[in-house]
Amino acid sequence: MPGTGSLWCVLTMQDALRTLSDYWTSRGCLTWQPFNTEVGAGTMNPATVLRVLGPEPWDVAYVEPSVRPDDSRYGLNPNRLQTHTQFQVILKPEPGDPQELYLGSLEALGIDLDAHDVRFVEDNWAQPAIGAWGLGWEVWLDGMEITQFTYFQQVGGQDLDPIPVELTYGMERILMAQQGVTHFKDIAYSRKPDGTVISYGEAFGQQEYEMSRYYLDDADVGINQNLYESFVAEATRMVEARLPVPAHQFILKSSHAFNVLDARGAISTTERAKAFGTMRRLMKETAALWVERREELGFPLLKTAPEREVPSKDTVDVAEDAPAATFVLELGVEELPPHVLPQTIDAIREAITAGLGASKLTHGSITVDGTPRRVFAVVEDVQAREPDSQTMRKGPKWSAAFDADGNPTKPLQGFMRGQGVTVDQVIKAEVGGNEHACVAIDTPGRPAPQVLGDLIETTVNGLRAEKNMRWNDPNLSFSRAVRWLLALWGDSVIPARVSDVVAGRTTYLMRTTASSVDTGRLADGTPVGHHEVGSANDYLPLITGGRINAFTDQRRSDIVEQTVALAERAGGVVDIEGNAELIDEITNLVEDPHGILGDFDERYLELPDRILVSVMASHQRYLPVRKADGTLLPHFITMANGACDDALVASGNESVLRARYEDALFFWNQDLEASTVKHFIPRLEQLTFENRLGSVGLRARRIADVAGVLGDAVKIDEQRRATLTRAGALAKFDLATSLVTEMTSLAGFVAREYAVRMGEPQAVADALYEMEQPHTTADAVPASTPGALLALADRFDLLAAMFGLGAKPSGSSDPYGLRRAALGVVRILRERPELAVLTIRDGLEAAASRLGEQGVECSAETMDAAEEFIVGRFAQLQRDEGRSADMVAAVRPSAVRPGVADVHARSLETLRTDEGFRSLVQGVLRISRIVPRGTSPQYDSSLLSDPAEIALHEVVSGFAAATDVQDFARRGQELVGPVTSFFDETLVMAEDVNVRAARLGLLASILIAAPSGLDWIAVDALVS
Amino acid sequence: MPGTGSLWCVLTMQDALRTLSDYWTSRGCLTWQPFNTEVGAGTMNPATVLRVLGPEPWDVAYVEPSVRPDDSRYGLNPNRLQTHTQFQVILKPEPGDPQELYLGSLEALGIDLDAHDVRFVEDNWAQPAIGAWGLGWEVWLDGMEITQFTYFQQVGGQDLDPIPVELTYGMERILMAQQGVTHFKDIAYSRKPDGTVISYGEAFGQQEYEMSRYYLDDADVGINQNLYESFVAEATRMVEARLPVPAHQFILKSSHAFNVLDARGAISTTERAKAFGTMRRLMKETAALWVERREELGFPLLKTAPEREVPSKDTVDVAEDAPAATFVLELGVEELPPHVLPQTIDAIREAITAGLGASKLTHGSITVDGTPRRVFAVVEDVQAREPDSQTMRKGPKWSAAFDADGNPTKPLQGFMRGQGVTVDQVIKAEVGGNEHACVAIDTPGRPAPQVLGDLIETTVNGLRAEKNMRWNDPNLSFSRAVRWLLALWGDSVIPARVSDVVAGRTTYLMRTTASSVDTGRLADGTPVGHHEVGSANDYLPLITGGRINAFTDQRRSDIVEQTVALAERAGGVVDIEGNAELIDEITNLVEDPHGILGDFDERYLELPDRILVSVMASHQRYLPVRKADGTLLPHFITMANGACDDALVASGNESVLRARYEDALFFWNQDLEASTVKHFIPRLEQLTFENRLGSVGLRARRIADVAGVLGDAVKIDEQRRATLTRAGALAKFDLATSLVTEMTSLAGFVAREYAVRMGEPQAVADALYEMEQPHTTADAVPASTPGALLALADRFDLLAAMFGLGAKPSGSSDPYGLRRAALGVVRILRERPELAVLTIRDGLEAAASRLGEQGVECSAETMDAAEEFIVGRFAQLQRDEGRSADMVAAVRPSAVRPGVADVHARSLETLRTDEGFRSLVQGVLRISRIVPRGTSPQYDSSLLSDPAEIALHEVVSGFAAATDVQDFARRGQELVGPVTSFFDETLVMAEDVNVRAARLGLLASILIAAPSGLDWIAVDALVS
Repeated sequence: MPGTGSLWCVLTMQDALRTLSDYWTSRGCLTWQPFNTEVGAGTMNPATVLRVLGPEPWDVAYVEPSVRPDDSRYGLNPNRLQTHTQFQVILKPEPGDPQELYLGSLEALGIDLDAHDVRFVEDNWAQPAIGAWGLGWEVWLDGMEITQFTYFQQVGGQDLDPIPVELTYGMERILMAQQGVTHFKDIAYSRKPDGTVISYGEAFGQQEYEMSRYYLDDADVGINQNLYESFVAEATRMVEARLPVPAHQFILKSSHAFNVLDARGAISTTERAKAFGTMRRLMKETAALWVERREELGFPLLKTAPEREVPSKDTVDVAEDAPAATFVLELGVEELPPHVLPQTIDAIREAITAGLGASKLTHGSITVDGTPRRVFAVVEDVQAREPDSQTMRKGPKWSAAFDADGNPTKPLQGFMRGQGVTVDQVIKAEVGGNEHACVAIDTPGRPAPQVLGDLIETTVNGLRAEKNMRWNDPNLSFSRAVRWLLALWGDSVIPARVSDVVAGRTTYLMRTTASSVDTGRLADGTPVGHHEVGSANDYLPLITGGRINAFTDQRRSDIVEQTVALAERAGGVVDIEGNAELIDEITNLVEDPHGILGDFDERYLELPDRILVSVMASHQRYLPVRKADGTLLPHFITMANGACDDALVASGNESVLRARYEDALFFWNQDLEASTVKHFIPRLEQLTFENRLGSVGLRARRIADVAGVLGDAVKIDEQRRATLTRAGALAKFDLATSLVTEMTSLAGFVAREYAVRMGEPQAVADALYEMEQPHTTADAVPASTPGALLALADRFDLLAAMFGLGAKPSGSSDPYGLRRAALGVVRILRERPELAVLTIRDGLEAAASRLGEQGVECSAETMDAAEEFIVGRFAQLQRDEGRSADMVAAVRPSAVRPGVADVHARSLETLRTDEGFRSLVQGVLRISRIVPRGTSPQYDSSLLSDPAEIALHEVVSGFAAATDVQDFARRGQELVGPVTSFFDETLVMAEDVNVRAARLGLLASILIAAPSGLDWIAVDALVS
Repeated sequence: MPGTGSLWCVLTMQDALRTLSDYWTSRGCLTWQPFNTEVGAGTMNPATVLRVLGPEPWDVAYVEPSVRPDDSRYGLNPNRLQTHTQFQVILKPEPGDPQELYLGSLEALGIDLDAHDVRFVEDNWAQPAIGAWGLGWEVWLDGMEITQFTYFQQVGGQDLDPIPVELTYGMERILMAQQGVTHFKDIAYSRKPDGTVISYGEAFGQQEYEMSRYYLDDADVGINQNLYESFVAEATRMVEARLPVPAHQFILKSSHAFNVLDARGAISTTERAKAFGTMRRLMKETAALWVERREELGFPLLKTAPEREVPSKDTVDVAEDAPAATFVLELGVEELPPHVLPQTIDAIREAITAGLGASKLTHGSITVDGTPRRVFAVVEDVQAREPDSQTMRKGPKWSAAFDADGNPTKPLQGFMRGQGVTVDQVIKAEVGGNEHACVAIDTPGRPAPQVLGDLIETTVNGLRAEKNMRWNDPNLSFSRAVRWLLALWGDSVIPARVSDVVAGRTTYLMRTTASSVDTGRLADGTPVGHHEVGSANDYLPLITGGRINAFTDQRRSDIVEQTVALAERAGGVVDIEGNAELIDEITNLVEDPHGILGDFDERYLELPDRILVSVMASHQRYLPVRKADGTLLPHFITMANGACDDALVASGNESVLRARYEDALFFWNQDLEASTVKHFIPRLEQLTFENRLGSVGLRARRIADVAGVLGDAVKIDEQRRATLTRAGALAKFDLATSLVTEMTSLAGFVAREYAVRMGEPQAVADALYEMEQPHTTADAVPASTPGALLALADRFDLLAAMFGLGAKPSGSSDPYGLRRAALGVVRILRERPELAVLTIRDGLEAAASRLGEQGVECSAETMDAAEEFIVGRFAQLQRDEGRSADMVAAVRPSAVRPGVADVHARSLETLRTDEGFRSLVQGVLRISRIVPRGTSPQYDSSLLSDPAEIALHEVVSGFAAATDVQDFARRGQELVGPVTSFFDETLVMAEDVNVRAARLGLLASILIAAPSGLDWIAVDALVS
């Protein structure tokens, strides 16, 4: 099902490249050439990565065959190539309308924007390896990502100014979609005048196969390591020689060598971290050097530095008797990320509400809502002016205002000078209970436009998101570019200016397309593009007429309604409740939700539900359609943004899903060619985990062994032992499967699926799945003991090893995910009661001992540090859960067994206001202060003579050790009185040594009977 | 002075690239991308170097930034860049009209072909490093090479079939010429819609500077050596893995690493030879592998293999009484190389003359002549038919033809059967003096068209040049493509077909241009393009009318006439006599010589005459204009091909010359900033000569020392000794100058020029010049003794070193030019009488001894081999000079002193028919046969008793040793008789040992008196 339009049908890939090149050249871009060193993306071409630095303008467009050794698939995969073709555009400074220019390029390619669903979906770009990041979108054409659209903010660690925009077109994807072919090899690459077509496969197929062979199978690891080091050495030398151009070239070369090694599986985590560090440093130095060198050359392209024209704002006069009117504000933005939209709506609502509250304007109801492209506020009945008011300025005390002669004293003279008044304007007034010389100042009420203008400026200037970017505006910074501001009070434009954005009466409805650009209306009369709004009250009707579903709740209901209907049409249902978060996200993705029902081939249903749904939901924001019994149906629902050619858009989305499923199915089937799980085990030896720790295979064996030791400690039964042993022998096998290599988030899940299919017992399969849990803080901990033991062993191995090697996390850097591992340990120990007997140290020691066999020394000091690190994470977690610092401190002595600490904490929580317990605690604390640590609870009761001590002795000797805090609190009440009397009446530190010992022994036996694992000082603080 | 045409004025470089891309794409080329690995030329992109292999069709066009580290000039040189932009086109198979297609592309670029002088100037391309060659031209636009146009014949050692044509446009040159700028940095690279221009320098200037820095100064030699080896290793492994694509990529990478090392001066001659060998081998294997792999894939692009249509030829009936008519043949070719044209004219003349001679056709005069694009033959009055004739077939002897009964014998029966006759047709006839049974066969005369058709086919099929190529014709092979054949007898087309070329009546005048393509006539009515010729007699008038100056002599006279007139206009003269060879060449370069007078800036006249003239004549085929006294004037004369816009073409040619002179002057001035010659000496240490032999500096010191030793041997006087010492200390200094680095053919010449300017004595300067002589076989040997000694030492050092290292020439491979060095040694020793005392071995030993000090072992065996090698070259030289093998053998014993050998040879030449000398020689030979080698010429004459021996003794004792052969021949006559008598009468081998010894001694003393250094057996053969 190819795209519409006859032009498209004849557009070959080379035509498309030429068309884009012509389009951008005609808009002022210089045509650059692909770089003559392998690059992973057009971004890395010096025409981008160097030229975006510094103040010089630079508009450029070029083709860039981008090499990603890791994506090598021998030309077999329909979508993935070791070399794919990017078309790259840089506009620096960003011209203010890059989205519109971009859409024009799609039209140039023959894409009918009225028929297709083009969307800007949040996608923030960061390339830490070159110290670069930017905000923007991936552009979707009928659900397919065809372009990366980014406002660069930083490159090579340098803040960019001016801000460039980068457009990166994925040409194969675009051509496949538009030519309606399902494999890149079938793309028509060129067509001769006689009609002969050369396909992409004919032109590049052999190269795809052979370079894949090189990258995946045949590249010599030693030689490429050598190349990598040579290139890094040259890059380093070139930085020293102050030559950024060759330095950059050698960074690229080293990066390619690194990628080759990576594709060959020859890069360990340490090596990766080290290489990234090197690259980041080199790129940073090179970037700085480039700017320096350009400055030395006088920034040659900085031909004109035109004076920035400061836009002016109008002022508005408001008649004295003008009636109240509606105030409307619309902040026009480029597509906000879904989670930013509600935050922005809230922020604007709060600012407007507070601002109006602080003014003296009366007003009616305030409505604030929005869509990804606009946030608006409508305030009804805003009074024309604030009422006039009088304020009193306080001068010196009346008594000190005039001298004996009735003349103003120096203080009063100063006050009058300051206020610019004469003595006849000074009056006496009482301020704060004292009489003062005062001046009454009449403050005329401000007209509403002025108040609102100030409010708008404050509001917009105050907008901030978590991640903010800059664009061509000199002062603003926000989640995405602010492009317009509509602000009306009645039919007047409110005078407001935020940096370069001046408020006006123009809104921007759905973007214009080629067919509607002249009229500003679609064929059916729907207004699109820029429109003027006559009066505030016209605003909502206009945008609604422009089919903008402006209110979030309405939009969401609309989506749900359409979804239900479409699902029904497909004979199924969508779990609205279960997909609530996704529906929320979709609501914030479109202005005019337009439901489209799509299908996929039933044969993909052989893939597990989780894989299918994960692709639909997380990648594509599609809602999966299910039978009533929950079984997946081969359909999905997507929300286009506005009316379109449904069949066309459905077909486009279907092909995207097909490609992704084809990929997954390909690996799934490839993996399942193996008849046993054992098949994958040897390959684990080829996966490097960390160069000092050996392969993943070695690590898997360590995990199995440590899990066994922990199993002994918790005395698991024979059946679970068998499961543990088998699962241990297969641990991590799925890391060697193609599917997990491709979709790493499926680790564990795939292990379970394959294990079952290859004849392993369900319990073993489950244990393999569970050993990766919890993946996230939201995820469950392992459900079975064998799974939990393996999960613990996995994390203890990692922690012991990394602390042993001195690689503990620092600052924000935690490349091995040790924080997550520590949290996992804590959660498993807390949530699996049968493991509560284990201490953190038990686990670390078991792991350390096993590592020791392998020659990795984990000293007691490093294990102390590891233990402290895990306990620290536990403390943090408790605080996050809302426990007080005192509570965390109170259970700290138990924290090495988090489950025990939790029991204590829960008990303490119920006892916080228990008076009796408080007395008991104070008694314990009093005892613990006087009894030296290590005092034996044995004592000779015959030496006791005071009645109080005898009374205490009697109570104590009948007091069984407390089983827990609750028990102690309850039964301990009988101790409170005798302890108090004892301290009141008996001198513990008797002169007779033996007597003294007996008395201390008596007290010590009370401590022994109290529950252990508590910090009594902290407990005392808690209950006081 | 920019080009004409308004289009051109606005065409920026990126416009030009796009225009070419569009032009070729519209003609069916696939658009390829520049390669993502550094290539030295577009040819190395796999889209050319791999795709031209095998049978698949492939039309492609692409931009290729081509990296030549050696051309790095920091962006300072106006024409030379480390990265220049090629536009590359491959048409495979060549389409039959590639020149016309190419000219169309120039028109597309806005070049007015009517106004400019576009020429196809022989330039044969060979890239031995990749086992590739082809024939073709460089295309000149107003004297500037703008395109390389090649019919590829072989790549990777593989014969190509079909034959592709390659077009390589040098974009910077084209743009500079057309934009009228004199530095590449000033090219307008792009122009925005608002008119803003970005210049080439702004876009690429910093890159030029920095990459030049890297290539020339900063690249780490060790690292790049390491890279080179790594890449070679990967290429080798990939060939073994049968993956030609990555193999080729690594060949490119290794090639670039090699080029970097070369630019850094880190490649010695051995390394170069070794690297080239490696590359050739790898490329050959890769090419073969590529074809194999494509075959395995079923040659995917070989979609249709259309049946080749065999063109048919007409037959012509000729009436019995048809009158005689003119025969004209025109062989239409693409531009022949100048030296091939006269050879082809001769070959056709001979073939036609012989062919007509062998026929029975009567005919008038035969005229054969031609231009670079056509060779024609006109034969007047060719009779319509051959006369009929009768021939006699000879059967058995008459006597054996019939049996006794008069019936035919078996032999006669067989004869009759063979001839298909009956007995009544058998006649008796005398053949060879015997009577035979015969049959008379009537042979009807063939019509002229048939005879001529056969003759044409034989003639054209028989054409061969020294270097031949193939094109799209299935069978033909010639210096350049044969594109048409005009063949008329009277008004009839002669039926002839040579492979795919069928004779017709169409000729092809000057190529059509855009303005004339429709009418076939220029504005002034001159016919151009294809025209039909009605009758043979119309042919010459038509081509003359088309302004084709068809006759070589007329063309030459025309050139001379125009040259004289133009020189006069410039107030000067051209040395017609001295430039005769150049004028001959020009005559064969154009069809319609159109003289253009150009000027160059007077400031270039500060450069030496030789440099100026060498650039004009050898590079550009310009005739230099001089004052009457011989001083150069700042003018030149060039011959355009046909009418053009004189001012425009002059300006274009002037800018070419300016660029070249600017280059030379830049280096000249740079070098002359040094105040002394000594300045350059240290730099020689950085030039590697050969890695085992050290730097050029080291070699220069060896040469000086060896020259000193040889000077001692020839006892030079003190003055010459001083010159020798000084010149030796400065030997080779000019190899460190920029000018010689750039124009290596100036080595020696530049040394003299700079030495004089930097204050060295003239004799020293001359010696430095002479030490490089003879450059060629045509060149003179050194004129002074110091120069000759240095020249000898230079060559002896090279020969001894290379033989010592085992690097003697083999087959066609002589990378160090040892054959030339050996010839130099021989010539100097022959032509400098004062050095005749030196033997070849003396020189070798002196060099070997000096090399030994440096640790280079030159064994006696290797020096034997070196000596033999030089003597062998001397022998070859003598044979080339016409000496007989006997003569060479006769003087072989003197060949170690070639001067001496020459004297002998000259004497022997005069004595070859001298009877007396012959007798003398026989006597000497007789003696030498009987006298054992080493016999002492001392003898006891008292032991002689026979009269004959006493007589001989008497003559001998009065015989002074001969000073030379002449002397010996003359005076030796007195020995002849006595020797003869001695042998007749005396038994040399007397029984008495003492007598025998005396007789042998007597004979030995004759041998001693005979001139040495002759091989008497050979001398005997010579005079016999």
